[in-house]
Amino acid sequence: MMPLKSSVLNLAKRRRSVRRFQKTQVDLGSVLTALEAACQAPSGANSQPWRFLVVTDHETKRRIREVCEKAEMEFYSKVVGHLKTWLLAKGLNWSKPFLEEAPLLVLIFSETKASYSTESVWLSIGYILLALEENGLSTLTYTPSGFEDASEHVGAPKGFKLEAILPIGIEAGKRPKEPRLDPQEVIYLDCWGRKLDPHNLSTYNVR
Amino acid sequence: MMPLKSSVLNLAKRRRSVRRFQKTQVDLGSVLTALEAACQAPSGANSQPWRFLVVTDHETKRRIREVCEKAEMEFYSKVVGHLKTWLLAKGLNWSKPFLEEAPLLVLIFSETKASYSTESVWLSIGYILLALEENGLSTLTYTPSGFEDASEHVGAPKGFKLEAILPIGIEAGKRPKEPRLDPQEVIYLDCWGRKLDPHNLSTYNVR
Repeated sequence: MMPLKSSVLNLAKRRRSVRRFQKTQVDLGSVLTALEAACQAPSGANSQPWRFLVVTDHETKRRIREVCEKAEMEFYSKVVGHLKTWLLAKGLNWSKPFLEEAPLLVLIFSETKASYSTESVWLSIGYILLALEENGLSTLTYTPSGFEDASEHVGAPKGFKLEAILPIGIEAGKRPKEPRLDPQEVIYLDCWGRKLDPHNLSTYNVR
Repeated sequence: MMPLKSSVLNLAKRRRSVRRFQKTQVDLGSVLTALEAACQAPSGANSQPWRFLVVTDHETKRRIREVCEKAEMEFYSKVVGHLKTWLLAKGLNWSKPFLEEAPLLVLIFSETKASYSTESVWLSIGYILLALEENGLSTLTYTPSGFEDASEHVGAPKGFKLEAILPIGIEAGKRPKEPRLDPQEVIYLDCWGRKLDPHNLSTYNVR
């Protein structure tokens, strides 16, 4: 029996990137549930190259914000092209208050010597986003340039790369989700560019 | 209404990588649902750098298998270290029958000019794996070396990188899941290496 609507699909549709958080405490158990899901993801040669550093300490968050904003200032002074246009249009700049304001951060590292370490870790981040959404928590996959200083500040050893910081909390305000392309624009059948008709799937014989 | 807690966690726990598939047809709608979920993932500057090529045509699958196995033979003749040990222990070799035997393949591409294209696409693969599991479909995140030939064979233009091939179907047989580390081994609190006690979370004050 086909489920009418996939709940994973519903979580994915509902989930939006959030940059402003309430001061409300978050349930650490819900965050750990999401990280536990991530630990179940597949990885290259099952190397499980992820490490998750949950940061609740305010002074540590403040210092992470400081080192990230310093790198962002440099990044924003150099950015060009489509990315610059997009950032300006979204009103984004070097200032990253969410790194201090979110009740907690999760710093996500990859063990660089593992095969496909970046790929595996980002797949696991997909699990985390859906699990947080399921538990009513919002986040953002923040990927600054100049992660080395933040990484050093929290004592991460060489051989581990900081892939992303997830500020986690309850959303303050409610901004709409960024629009997505129609799936038909990015899903092809049997050769590049050949579109599927999702309303007439019976035409396609899957043996 | 809140969905039941940790259903994402349950899907993540249940989900295993599968290399042997029944000849049973798969429901194309369930596969599209998983890809539709992927299209909802966040991406660098909302660039949505993913393209999904669903391959159902047997001759195309056979040819993809052929070009991938050719590259695998070269890879296996050179692989060393931990990865070689792991591959040998798992009985894995250059032969990839699942590329032909699975009822369908999904080839997943990233648009390389987009910021964080690989990261974004792999995050979306996390969504796909959970959505397939929810619909009773199994898969594997296959990442061969030498993807250029397969990519060329299906007509992908320059500027798109083949990140992974997912063979999708109903599992034949039932192999156990590869063991995972205890989450406590990879989740730290406030500084690198400091373990959390998941049974005594109330000790930690999240402001």
